[in-house]
Amino acid sequence: MQELKIIKSTTLKDKPEQVGDFGTIFTDHMFVLDYEEGKGWHNPVIEPYQPMLVDPASAILHYGQGIFEGMKAYKTNDGLVQLFRPRDNFLRLNRSAERLCIPQIDVDFVLECLNKLIELESEWIPTKEGTSLYIRPYIVATESFLGVRPSHKYKLFIILSPVGAYYPEGLKPVKILVEDKFVRAVAGGLGEAKTMANYAASLLAAQEAKSKGFSQVLWLDGVNLKYVEEVGTMNIFFKINGEIITPALNGSILPGITRDSVIKVLKSWGLTVNERKISIDEVVEAFDNELLEEAFGTGTAAVISPVGILQYKDKKMELKDFESDSIAHKLYDFITKLQYGKENDTFDWIKSLS
Amino acid sequence: MQELKIIKSTTLKDKPEQVGDFGTIFTDHMFVLDYEEGKGWHNPVIEPYQPMLVDPASAILHYGQGIFEGMKAYKTNDGLVQLFRPRDNFLRLNRSAERLCIPQIDVDFVLECLNKLIELESEWIPTKEGTSLYIRPYIVATESFLGVRPSHKYKLFIILSPVGAYYPEGLKPVKILVEDKFVRAVAGGLGEAKTMANYAASLLAAQEAKSKGFSQVLWLDGVNLKYVEEVGTMNIFFKINGEIITPALNGSILPGITRDSVIKVLKSWGLTVNERKISIDEVVEAFDNELLEEAFGTGTAAVISPVGILQYKDKKMELKDFESDSIAHKLYDFITKLQYGKENDTFDWIKSLS
Ligand SMILES: Cc1ncc(COP(=O)(O)O)c(C=O)c1O
Ligand SMILES: Cc1ncc(COP(=O)(O)O)c(C=O)c1O
Repeated sequence: MQELKIIKSTTLKDKPEQVGDFGTIFTDHMFVLDYEEGKGWHNPVIEPYQPMLVDPASAILHYGQGIFEGMKAYKTNDGLVQLFRPRDNFLRLNRSAERLCIPQIDVDFVLECLNKLIELESEWIPTKEGTSLYIRPYIVATESFLGVRPSHKYKLFIILSPVGAYYPEGLKPVKILVEDKFVRAVAGGLGEAKTMANYAASLLAAQEAKSKGFSQVLWLDGVNLKYVEEVGTMNIFFKINGEIITPALNGSILPGITRDSVIKVLKSWGLTVNERKISIDEVVEAFDNELLEEAFGTGTAAVISPVGILQYKDKKMELKDFESDSIAHKLYDFITKLQYGKENDTFDWIKSLS
Repeated sequence: MQELKIIKSTTLKDKPEQVGDFGTIFTDHMFVLDYEEGKGWHNPVIEPYQPMLVDPASAILHYGQGIFEGMKAYKTNDGLVQLFRPRDNFLRLNRSAERLCIPQIDVDFVLECLNKLIELESEWIPTKEGTSLYIRPYIVATESFLGVRPSHKYKLFIILSPVGAYYPEGLKPVKILVEDKFVRAVAGGLGEAKTMANYAASLLAAQEAKSKGFSQVLWLDGVNLKYVEEVGTMNIFFKINGEIITPALNGSILPGITRDSVIKVLKSWGLTVNERKISIDEVVEAFDNELLEEAFGTGTAAVISPVGILQYKDKKMELKDFESDSIAHKLYDFITKLQYGKENDTFDWIKSLS
């Protein structure tokens, strides 16, 4: 690989006083890497954040051959910059790449470039409680060609966006609608890849759920519309009569990094977590028998989202008021403390910037 | 709607002597229409074909909220320009839009603009037997925003590409592999929309099939991997013991315009076509009993593609050598004659440019 080139922006943007809506403000620079068949990945560069020229016949405007990741950089009270399991995000990017016929990247090299980019932009990382710098690596097909086959050209980008606290006033339970008509993904499809298609497939269901006052949908499996899969942008956990359960990774669920962290943390606390099939009927039955003790989502954006209301068809399940000795609350505290350097990292998940 | 603005290119490209690979050469101009929430569709313009500026956070690079169409303009021996059922393509675009939470377009207006664009580019329509001008209308989400929700901004494009004859030496049977592992779409998903996700989902299966010497895959349903759905970019028909069968539109199959035309032509010939569920086992059994008389794909690109070899797992089904009195051949002749103005259009499918 060539050496990373750094082209600094001659004018810097004003950093916002307060971080506003998620994903609308971007930092001064971005990382770009090109791929061309025969040449491989080449031309790594950190350059000013700017629009790019895209041909109207570019593959990415037609056939959805694109994948992405989402992760965060956190600033500790001592001003140290920390990433949470960044390598796992790039390993997942490579797994998504395989499914989408996109060439593999050199994870170590791209991680190095990410570190340099964040170093350069470290003043963009907000410092208020719960804020962070959202990191969006993505790869898109860029060949100008209208046929349906893998592109011969790609671009990898990493862009950065300062984001506010998800729960500025402490954990707030969310309202979730169990989706019983639309399907996000099915075994043999793209569900376990972090690729555009899955999000496109989610738009209409999410829109209908929002219009009914829910914040996200809970997807059921595409074959039977029976087994629980995951929430819009989170994996899901239940605590039923003492048993902690999350749907097993079955090919149509995104293997969340927060999901994996939660499982490992719970195990380190001596609790068992069962990764298994769980039907929505089992959840309803548990609720009816007053055995549904908790439900919560896990994901990079909110870390942990306790479920306050879960609605399945006409059945509205209100979960007990969120209490601070719940598992959801304990997990949230523990993982966010790790991320902000307030908890000793025995898992080797934190990568501090040198 | 504002009036269509036409900005002519000051330099025109050389038109190719011979049309080469599909989808690589584009004409001098394109049609562009903008959408913004609150403003609706606006700013219709025919302008020079050129790259556009895309922000790295543009929705289309992340969440796959994009749809498209594919159709053709044909030149008759008298130099007349003809479109085949263009309104149906834009009606389908609107149905795809609905599924993808994209605002509806005014079909009549866009058809008018398309006519003007093709008029301007009519010299680009190749005249050799079987050649045509491929028309690619598409809509992409263009808001710069990283959240998962429908974009507030869109662009509609129509670009044009001269294409060669699909079968320069007459109909050639294709080799198709029945896909028994990967799934393209499932009921409740995006299968019946012409949207990026479905093509992204097809890449790996198609690549594996190509490496084994097949030209496309035949998809089975996502629930049971049992019922026949469609081919990569074609719908599928079988003739079994005299019965003509095509899978019924079930929500996960693209409602092909060629499929619809074939059904109507066959009916006009006094033949019955059954749109019904058909399992791959039924096809194999018919083959074993020497009752599988024909199989062919239907789609805009090739019109009709007779299947020469259909392979399901270890079962290689070789279909009888293509004969000119087959239904596939008759349909191909009839529909291409309509398209090139050599057959009287009793269906009202042909729209000649004024
Ligand atoms: C569909 C989906 N499931 C689950 C997750 C949670 O994954 P992670 O914990 O890696 O953020 C996300 C968000 O990234 C997602 O988009
Ligand atoms: C998935 C798929 N099925 C079927 C078809 C055939 O549709 P049509 O006859 O409208 O070209 C196409 C091509 O457009 C397609 O992409």
